[in-house]
Amino acid sequence: MPNSHPNKAFGWAARDKSGTLSPFDFSRRLTGDNDVQFKVMYCGICHSDLHMVRNGWGMTKYPIVPGHELVGMVTEVGKNVHRFKVGDRVGVGCLVGSCRKCENCTIDLENYCPKQILTYSATDVDGTITFGGYSDTMVSNEHFVIHWPENLPMEAAPLLCAGITTYSPLKHFELAKPGKHVGVVGLGGLGHMAVKFAKAFGAKVTVISTTIAKKQEAIERLGADAFLISRNPEQMQAAVGTMDGIIDAVSVTHPLTPLIMLLKTNGKLIMLGAPDKPLELPAFPLILGSRAIAGSCIGGLKETQEMIDFAAKNNITPEVEVVPMDYVNTAMERMLKSDVKYRFVLDIANTMKKETVSQDERNVS
Amino acid sequence: MPNSHPNKAFGWAARDKSGTLSPFDFSRRLTGDNDVQFKVMYCGICHSDLHMVRNGWGMTKYPIVPGHELVGMVTEVGKNVHRFKVGDRVGVGCLVGSCRKCENCTIDLENYCPKQILTYSATDVDGTITFGGYSDTMVSNEHFVIHWPENLPMEAAPLLCAGITTYSPLKHFELAKPGKHVGVVGLGGLGHMAVKFAKAFGAKVTVISTTIAKKQEAIERLGADAFLISRNPEQMQAAVGTMDGIIDAVSVTHPLTPLIMLLKTNGKLIMLGAPDKPLELPAFPLILGSRAIAGSCIGGLKETQEMIDFAAKNNITPEVEVVPMDYVNTAMERMLKSDVKYRFVLDIANTMKKETVSQDERNVS
Repeated sequence: MPNSHPNKAFGWAARDKSGTLSPFDFSRRLTGDNDVQFKVMYCGICHSDLHMVRNGWGMTKYPIVPGHELVGMVTEVGKNVHRFKVGDRVGVGCLVGSCRKCENCTIDLENYCPKQILTYSATDVDGTITFGGYSDTMVSNEHFVIHWPENLPMEAAPLLCAGITTYSPLKHFELAKPGKHVGVVGLGGLGHMAVKFAKAFGAKVTVISTTIAKKQEAIERLGADAFLISRNPEQMQAAVGTMDGIIDAVSVTHPLTPLIMLLKTNGKLIMLGAPDKPLELPAFPLILGSRAIAGSCIGGLKETQEMIDFAAKNNITPEVEVVPMDYVNTAMERMLKSDVKYRFVLDIANTMKKETVSQDERNVS
Repeated sequence: MPNSHPNKAFGWAARDKSGTLSPFDFSRRLTGDNDVQFKVMYCGICHSDLHMVRNGWGMTKYPIVPGHELVGMVTEVGKNVHRFKVGDRVGVGCLVGSCRKCENCTIDLENYCPKQILTYSATDVDGTITFGGYSDTMVSNEHFVIHWPENLPMEAAPLLCAGITTYSPLKHFELAKPGKHVGVVGLGGLGHMAVKFAKAFGAKVTVISTTIAKKQEAIERLGADAFLISRNPEQMQAAVGTMDGIIDAVSVTHPLTPLIMLLKTNGKLIMLGAPDKPLELPAFPLILGSRAIAGSCIGGLKETQEMIDFAAKNNITPEVEVVPMDYVNTAMERMLKSDVKYRFVLDIANTMKKETVSQDERNVS
């Protein structure tokens, strides 16, 4: 059921599980008393967007306007909003709502609230479906809006998902300090941010990869200290028991035992990607080393602001390829082949042209 | 290769993977300068003993004298030993050696030392094979000997493995306090100790079982607060997200997702048993709740002494069935069928009769 809000909006949507995106007229709600409305300038393309437009997790509501790494400029604020004013640079990440009163919400873990509202393809409190950042405007409750520092480029939008998703577990599992040795598996949108943040925290960082092809880049461009080829048994054996934690951003099924063996006593393997099929869990290497496999999902709003401020202060930005809106389907195909270093960002403000909408598509909403 | 130490010893050993135990003459080393020699009074029968006598983990060295829950009375001490004297009540658990200088040993985690020496069927520093507690005497470096308090019954020997294996993770994962809700799966030798310790720490305890048969016992005898039937979907659904941690003492393959779903945000499923086959690891419920699956293996020596003192002070003892030495093979069969509440303990001092050894068996060592 299309939403019927008063404010016209325009974006790109997928209509079915082909996942092909095309221009889309829709609407957004009036700016409520606690809302911030903003013009979207940039929006990152996350791997989840690809999963979702193709209904990979079976939860997609079509038409879907993806995008949960939005940065823009405030155009209107509700009467109760004092933290933001028109013209402010702001961001919105994966969440636009949560219950605000559960055990998780009260300790700033809105990301684990059972009633959280995702930025797109979720049911909002008024029963309408949320639309994401591949669109010209956005409106969100101010609690879910982030201050975007002046000195942080707006193209760094992927910090709002890829950034916080790696920053949060590094902090939570006490890996964010000098003297710690952090492994990173899966050098994509998430993995490359894990390397940058772990280095900024002063940890030693080793990238673990199936192929040597990424070695030079990992060390010279991203600043990793070492590189391990997971298919080289001698290298892997020499690194057994040396890591305090491993950020695992691989989203396909992969063997866990070789990674777990790299951990010290009490070390943690932290999974950020969810493969479609269950992984094999070897109990012995966990038991014999008091090791753990943990999961982590984005971060709370307070920590997201902390992460953005840390990134601005320490000049930490994602490596991005900025592309025009009408490149989005090509970008998705390239992302599927890992042909991007390391994140596509849509230049919404400069390239989203409303006149590309056909009459048929105008009638959809 | 049989050991050729000067001190004659006598016990029961398995000679092959049938696992059948029978009388066995062997020898122990002279009491070294840092050693404690003691007469074994009681020894618990652990599930690992059964695995090991049948070479279930492929690491058994025959002949094997099992037993790593030994309690006895000191008969001799080396000249450097000042912590113990003749006549003291003492215990030895799963370890009789470790390197004493690695990263783990220096923080009292000898249980994770890569060079740890297990109490039986392991290679000792002098190249001989270690023999466990199904025997009349024992000799061990004093570091691995525990003071056994006067008011703690010697039949409570299973504290030395089943006790510390459950006490340690409750402490390590911060479940050992009032306000915490601890689940316990697998109500056997380990599980029933987890219930007792968690209750003594002031936590709320829920036993999770496939069958209602254990409910009355769990609540009335062991003191659990609640009981969940894992095959009852309504009960399991109602308990979703309510537990801070679960002690999982099941040593056969079992579904993890229903257990993980019972955990709160940041909750831990702690595996103590190692099934022969890998388990299925569902990534989504870990990621969406910042939950973890961890392993834990016995405990360090310092913590073992702390646990024994805590047990003595709080009258926490395992529920045991004391049996004579020649009942050991029957006890193993019954244990395999979970037909014991909750641990067999061998009455070594009163029932191990040397004259039961046949001439053939005398010639083995």
